[in-house]
Amino acid sequence: MKPILSPIHIEIPDWLVPPVDSGPSAMPDIADRMHFVIRLSRQNIEHRTGGPFAAAIFECASGRLIAAGVNLVTSANLSIAHAEIMAITLAQQALGTRDLSACELVASCEPCAMCFGAVPWSGIRRLVCGARSEDATRVGFDEGEKSADWAGALARRGIEVVRDVCRAEAVAVLTDYAAQGGEMYNGAKHP
Amino acid sequence: MKPILSPIHIEIPDWLVPPVDSGPSAMPDIADRMHFVIRLSRQNIEHRTGGPFAAAIFECASGRLIAAGVNLVTSANLSIAHAEIMAITLAQQALGTRDLSACELVASCEPCAMCFGAVPWSGIRRLVCGARSEDATRVGFDEGEKSADWAGALARRGIEVVRDVCRAEAVAVLTDYAAQGGEMYNGAKHP
Repeated sequence: MKPILSPIHIEIPDWLVPPVDSGPSAMPDIADRMHFVIRLSRQNIEHRTGGPFAAAIFECASGRLIAAGVNLVTSANLSIAHAEIMAITLAQQALGTRDLSACELVASCEPCAMCFGAVPWSGIRRLVCGARSEDATRVGFDEGEKSADWAGALARRGIEVVRDVCRAEAVAVLTDYAAQGGEMYNGAKHP
Repeated sequence: MKPILSPIHIEIPDWLVPPVDSGPSAMPDIADRMHFVIRLSRQNIEHRTGGPFAAAIFECASGRLIAAGVNLVTSANLSIAHAEIMAITLAQQALGTRDLSACELVASCEPCAMCFGAVPWSGIRRLVCGARSEDATRVGFDEGEKSADWAGALARRGIEVVRDVCRAEAVAVLTDYAAQGGEMYNGAKHP
C-alpha cells in the first residue's frame, strides 16, 4: 500500500454556521465574547461533534469576530483538532495571513501543552481563558507537560493572558461532558 | 464583514508526490528513514515551499511509510503548518484513525513547543530526531518554551526518543536555508 497524498481537509460542523452567522458583528465586552465561546462549547457536546471546548479569534480593537472553532478530535479523528488550533487556522485562512497580531484568542479553557505552544506562532496579542487547566484535569483530561508559569512565559513574549473569565459557566460544560460519559480522548494510552 | 466558515484545507506541494510515490515501500533501517526525511526537508527549501523541516510517520514493525509532511508555514500562510503537524494529520487521515500507536514519527529536527505538545496526543510510540533544537535556534528559529527535560517527559509517557540520527546532514539543511536568507517566521514579532 502506497502512502496517500491527499490534502488536509477538515470539515466544519453544519450546526456551527447559524450561531456564527447570526451573532453580533462585534462584541466589545469581554464577558460577551466569552459567553459566545462557552455557548459554542456547550453546543459541541450537545451535537456530539467533539470535546467540551470552543475558541474564537476576535479583532482586539473592535471585538469583531474573525473565526470560531470547536474541538473536533473525536468526530474528525484528528488529534490536533483542538478548538484553539481550529480557531487560529480558520482565522488565518479567512484573513489570508498567518499574522494575527491585531487579534485575541478567546478560549473556553486554558490551553493544553500543544495549544500553549501554538499561541506565540499565531502572533495573537491576548489570550482570554474561561476554565482553568486544573478544571479540565479534574474531569479527566490530560493537559500535557506545560510549565507551571505558562502564563508568565506568554506575557514575557508580549502576549497578555486574562484568566477566569466566566470560569464557573465554562466549568459547567466540562462537568456536564464528563457526567454524560464523554470520551477523555487525550488520556495516556501507553503503560 | 461576516466571519467565513469554510473548511480547513491545506494543499500538499506537487513536488512531494514523486519522492513519496517512488520511495521504497518499507525502510527497516532508521538511517534510511532519516535520510528520506532529510531529503524532503532539502527539497522543501529548494522548491521554496516552506522552512527547512520535514517529518514522516512510519509503521514501527515494518518501517512502512504511512505519510510524509513538510513545513508549509510560509507558503500556506498557516502558523500550525509545521512538518510534524502535517505528517501526524496526514497519517491519521490516511489510516482513518487518530490512534498512531503502531507508529513512529521521524523528524528532521527536534520539536518546537507546539509539536512537542502534539506528540502525545497522536499516540505515536517513538520519536526520531535529526538536528537538535539548539541547531535550529543557532540559525535563528524560535523553538518556544519547552522544558529542558522534554525528552524525559515523553519517555515517562512511554514514548521512546531517539536523538542525533544523521544530525550533521540535517543541520546542513538548516544552515543552507539561513545562508540563502530564508525567512525565520517564528521569530518573536512583539516588543
